[in-house]
Amino acid sequence: MKAVRNRYRDSIVINPLMRGGMIPRGVREELCRDWMRTGYETCHDCLEGRSGLIRNPPITEFLAEVAEFFGGDVAEHTFGCRAAQFTVMRAVASQAEGRTVIADATCHYTTMISAEMCGLQVVEVPHSGYPEYRINPEDYGEKIREVRQETGTDPALVVATHADPYYGNIIDVAEVGRVCSEAGVPFMVNAAYTGGVMPIDMKRMNIDFLSLSAHKSMASLSPLGYVVTSYQYSKKLFETSKIRPAWSGRLFGKKVPNLFGCGIGGQPLISSMLAFPYVKERVKGWDGELDKTRRFADEMEKECDMVLMGDLPHNHHLLHFETPLFWEISRTHKKKGFFLASEMVKRGIVGLHRGLTKHVKMSVYGLTEEEVRRVAEAFMEVAEAGRGREQDAGEKPSARAG
Amino acid sequence: MKAVRNRYRDSIVINPLMRGGMIPRGVREELCRDWMRTGYETCHDCLEGRSGLIRNPPITEFLAEVAEFFGGDVAEHTFGCRAAQFTVMRAVASQAEGRTVIADATCHYTTMISAEMCGLQVVEVPHSGYPEYRINPEDYGEKIREVRQETGTDPALVVATHADPYYGNIIDVAEVGRVCSEAGVPFMVNAAYTGGVMPIDMKRMNIDFLSLSAHKSMASLSPLGYVVTSYQYSKKLFETSKIRPAWSGRLFGKKVPNLFGCGIGGQPLISSMLAFPYVKERVKGWDGELDKTRRFADEMEKECDMVLMGDLPHNHHLLHFETPLFWEISRTHKKKGFFLASEMVKRGIVGLHRGLTKHVKMSVYGLTEEEVRRVAEAFMEVAEAGRGREQDAGEKPSARAG
Repeated sequence: MKAVRNRYRDSIVINPLMRGGMIPRGVREELCRDWMRTGYETCHDCLEGRSGLIRNPPITEFLAEVAEFFGGDVAEHTFGCRAAQFTVMRAVASQAEGRTVIADATCHYTTMISAEMCGLQVVEVPHSGYPEYRINPEDYGEKIREVRQETGTDPALVVATHADPYYGNIIDVAEVGRVCSEAGVPFMVNAAYTGGVMPIDMKRMNIDFLSLSAHKSMASLSPLGYVVTSYQYSKKLFETSKIRPAWSGRLFGKKVPNLFGCGIGGQPLISSMLAFPYVKERVKGWDGELDKTRRFADEMEKECDMVLMGDLPHNHHLLHFETPLFWEISRTHKKKGFFLASEMVKRGIVGLHRGLTKHVKMSVYGLTEEEVRRVAEAFMEVAEAGRGREQDAGEKPSARAG
Repeated sequence: MKAVRNRYRDSIVINPLMRGGMIPRGVREELCRDWMRTGYETCHDCLEGRSGLIRNPPITEFLAEVAEFFGGDVAEHTFGCRAAQFTVMRAVASQAEGRTVIADATCHYTTMISAEMCGLQVVEVPHSGYPEYRINPEDYGEKIREVRQETGTDPALVVATHADPYYGNIIDVAEVGRVCSEAGVPFMVNAAYTGGVMPIDMKRMNIDFLSLSAHKSMASLSPLGYVVTSYQYSKKLFETSKIRPAWSGRLFGKKVPNLFGCGIGGQPLISSMLAFPYVKERVKGWDGELDKTRRFADEMEKECDMVLMGDLPHNHHLLHFETPLFWEISRTHKKKGFFLASEMVKRGIVGLHRGLTKHVKMSVYGLTEEEVRRVAEAFMEVAEAGRGREQDAGEKPSARAG
């Protein structure tokens, strides 16, 4: 087997998947010093056979803090946001009459896969198309009426992706929450890209279920997520096991099937517990991060002929640019579509999807001003070199002029 | 929140859950040096959107090695052995006519929970009861006939727990495999406690599906497991997503619903890749480990009035002892059932279940002779002190004399 090496160990990471999950140095050091001898470091004092019930380390207490921080009543940890969504969908699928989930057309693939795993269909709330791809919260009401008309039942669940993974648009989830609350249908927000970087208040926003990704936006090792809900819904979501084979009569009364019995937790959970004070603090600085992000995007549009897609002004750190200049260069470059990511890696910057140059997705969330400078200059250098190569091709017009 | 501290950082671990998962020092060091900045360290060079298809680090190649090592054709990583079992059960539940799983009465709770999650019933193959709790492989044939008679269909799946989590008994899975193969029913072995410590050959043993726990028996961080199968069954197990919402027409053709789309992997997967050469090597030393385990058990029986449950001679490192002396002591001790674990912790040894003194489960797998000595002496000291306290109570007769 090829060597297992991380050649990006010292690079600046700009992958928008990863920026909210970067692990603070202090957390890494504590983890590596005290918590790395066994995957069950959380379990030495387990009395009841479920990670969420462990008092030392204070997992029970920590989960209550997570719930409170997001304005919910009860939280459990899961194997990532995908598993959090699965928990919710499995619970609603087993209880609701309806077989339909309503979700925004910009939802993450894991929302679709969770529905598929639970035998649910998905009806999409359309986005507004190029170049904004916006979701109108009022359209949720429309879709609820359609589903009722066509299926004769309520949708099993309504989902809004707080920040979508394609364009970094923010859906007005408070407004969708109002619509769902009025219609009396359960409402889940997928906060994989927001919970842990920007403020969320489930109660104020009328959110019944929140799915979170600790490794995407809560500065944690992977795989880890959380599902947060109200007391009322927690009974359904975290119902304990009922299966009881006849011969032995064994019963597993502390285990929660929707969480695979016990969620283990391991190093990811420890890392998330250690990082949580940092996460709570940084959320207060969200406006500053947004400001930095917007300034960076402006510079890229101006200096590198990039065109930002999605919301203007942009309200999330995920940036999706059209990059006509880089695409033009790639057409004659010997590395083809791989040239851009490759040029960035040469400059100590990792995170652009290899093979793509027509569009790029990136983020500068959590980078210092100096690191943002390095990233901006790297793009400008590559653009400049490309303009030299392409001098006979003239200037590309912006696809989103005005 | 209470401080997040690991007060067992320097203790000898004897929890049988953990011994096969202890992470080699070199792996820890490499992990901490190169792989801890983001939970997505595996994903910098992801091209296809699924962890198992990543070439750098060599995940695809590694999974092929895992499959080969266990005598299978195809392996995928999962969120633990519980998720591996879920993958198999979900696949068979969606395709088989039968709704019944046959499993040994000593199966782990996750086998029951997986069945419950997939809407399957479990019929148990009885064990022989106190003090051996043995599973007779021939009884599987009997149960298959019963299920056919009672339900009119084949069982959806037959499960054998290679080493059971209660007594550390080894089921003769090759013999169960022969029975299942003759009956033409799919056969899964849960090797959570064996795969990575003792040799397994799926082909020779007629095993269709193997579920593995990397954090239990493959020296890895948690949560991580593997599911291994044949080419034939891999088509079912790892079928890609089919869901396609009408409005956008999006399709997620690389994602595998039975694996939550993509298994991420993260630090646990990296740790397992780094540890794999060590794991392959140590399996060759299984007989030596068994010998050490048996000598330790003999000494405990002789010196501490303990009585080993399960197979004699014992064929796995998980030891379940009756401890009548410690139980007697606990009845008058001010810490009650907590005294034994507490006395061991004082002596730098962690891993006995707190509150239990009538029985203990433990393991000395992977400990040096010197560490085994320290563990043995700690038990002997506590026994000796207890005999002093209980001198008027006389000797307790062994529950398994002869």
